[in-house]
Amino acid sequence: MEQIAPTTDKSPKSNGVTPGVYLIGAGPGAADLITVRGSRILSQADIVFYDALIDNSMLEWCVGTKLVQVGKRCGAHSSSQHFINKQLVDAASKYGIVVRLKGGDPMIFGRAQEEIDALEKANVRYEIVPGVTTALAASAELKQPPTTRELSRTLTLTTLPGRCAHEDHKTAIYYMARDQLSEVASTLIAQGYTLDTPICLMESVSLPMQRSFGCTLEELRFGDVHHYFIDKQPVVVMVGEVYRKKLQTLTPLLESQNYFKVLQAAS
Amino acid sequence: MEQIAPTTDKSPKSNGVTPGVYLIGAGPGAADLITVRGSRILSQADIVFYDALIDNSMLEWCVGTKLVQVGKRCGAHSSSQHFINKQLVDAASKYGIVVRLKGGDPMIFGRAQEEIDALEKANVRYEIVPGVTTALAASAELKQPPTTRELSRTLTLTTLPGRCAHEDHKTAIYYMARDQLSEVASTLIAQGYTLDTPICLMESVSLPMQRSFGCTLEELRFGDVHHYFIDKQPVVVMVGEVYRKKLQTLTPLLESQNYFKVLQAAS
Repeated sequence: MEQIAPTTDKSPKSNGVTPGVYLIGAGPGAADLITVRGSRILSQADIVFYDALIDNSMLEWCVGTKLVQVGKRCGAHSSSQHFINKQLVDAASKYGIVVRLKGGDPMIFGRAQEEIDALEKANVRYEIVPGVTTALAASAELKQPPTTRELSRTLTLTTLPGRCAHEDHKTAIYYMARDQLSEVASTLIAQGYTLDTPICLMESVSLPMQRSFGCTLEELRFGDVHHYFIDKQPVVVMVGEVYRKKLQTLTPLLESQNYFKVLQAAS
Repeated sequence: MEQIAPTTDKSPKSNGVTPGVYLIGAGPGAADLITVRGSRILSQADIVFYDALIDNSMLEWCVGTKLVQVGKRCGAHSSSQHFINKQLVDAASKYGIVVRLKGGDPMIFGRAQEEIDALEKANVRYEIVPGVTTALAASAELKQPPTTRELSRTLTLTTLPGRCAHEDHKTAIYYMARDQLSEVASTLIAQGYTLDTPICLMESVSLPMQRSFGCTLEELRFGDVHHYFIDKQPVVVMVGEVYRKKLQTLTPLLESQNYFKVLQAAS
């Protein structure tokens, strides 16, 4: 649906936020998929350390706030985690409300443990504000629950090609597997998933440039990511029998192309 | 952290919401853990069908809205799913903005497939607004990521005692397993989880009456739920090596009591 831009008014100060560090889940990308609590703290933050993957529209919640980009974008140069930890601890002694804004939910594949350890070691007051994780936002956009009573009552979230044992057609959603599509497919096939297992892939979930594709596990084996996806945009890979009906409505992966390449070729 | 009550002003009508049915994730419980998008649609809804598990504070987003409670609360009488589906389709022809407000995220263990199928069959326009799922909100409250680089890079979400194969200490979070604690424990032990595997349990996640407990898998085998938990309050069960450090700080499950029973006994 249409995204609504954040208002530029700060919330009234009566909604006071206790000073400290807040690890906040930004959600999948669209600015209005952050939580109400997250948006309120963000609008009152003194300094925000945000992931490179955060869409700029999200930062419109911040007015008169010091903004510091940290973290990495697929494949590109990144601040080291150790340096981010240090920045958070240092900021806590200089600013009132410090926000670490992380894509999706802060607790899932976000290296929150390292930031938590650093904050606890430095005795800094902190809270964690959960967010919508990308796998579930992708499910909402696709209009396909990852679990159904008939086909799968288990959802595995993982980042690793090898970590989804075959069991009753259960559903798996891979994060950060964009550059390992062939490896994911080969491993799942070796584990007993059938060649025609349906796969949905979604790029830039919830953002205006979101794109979805479908293929079978066999086709995914031949997936050369650079043919299909835009550099640095994240992709989630959804695997399981629940996606079979969706294959009929999605653009087949093997017919898709990276449209930046098409544009370059045409110019 | 402190919850903020929703404002009672409706959003300006310029933030127009397209008529149709919206399946909205309410998040884990606290009113301000719904997404900004969800709260905006909720505040403009003509009719809201809400789960019995939704906390009343969430409904303060709705002003002058027809409110219909549906769905079940652990163990209590429930509207049949078929009847809920029919209500949604009927409401779509009588009202402009129809909301189906579901606890957590609508796509995970929420029977969304049945509602989607009914809406598509009736050719009703609908959208899905994702929410914070309870497992991740519980992780935020516990300040313990379910995955860490060292101990587990896979998270399994499930409702079934039997569906978490032992693999490299990986993490599993069970929804709706409150009344099956012994069965969950016995099955995990049979699958190779060690008796001292750490378990965290959290009741009424993100609400003022939230409570957390810790135990080992061996202790969980002897868990008679009625000794510990309050009737009808949901509980998530978090299993895995990542929780070991937390065991030192949590109330041991076997020392806890259902405080309603204690109150009754004292009166």
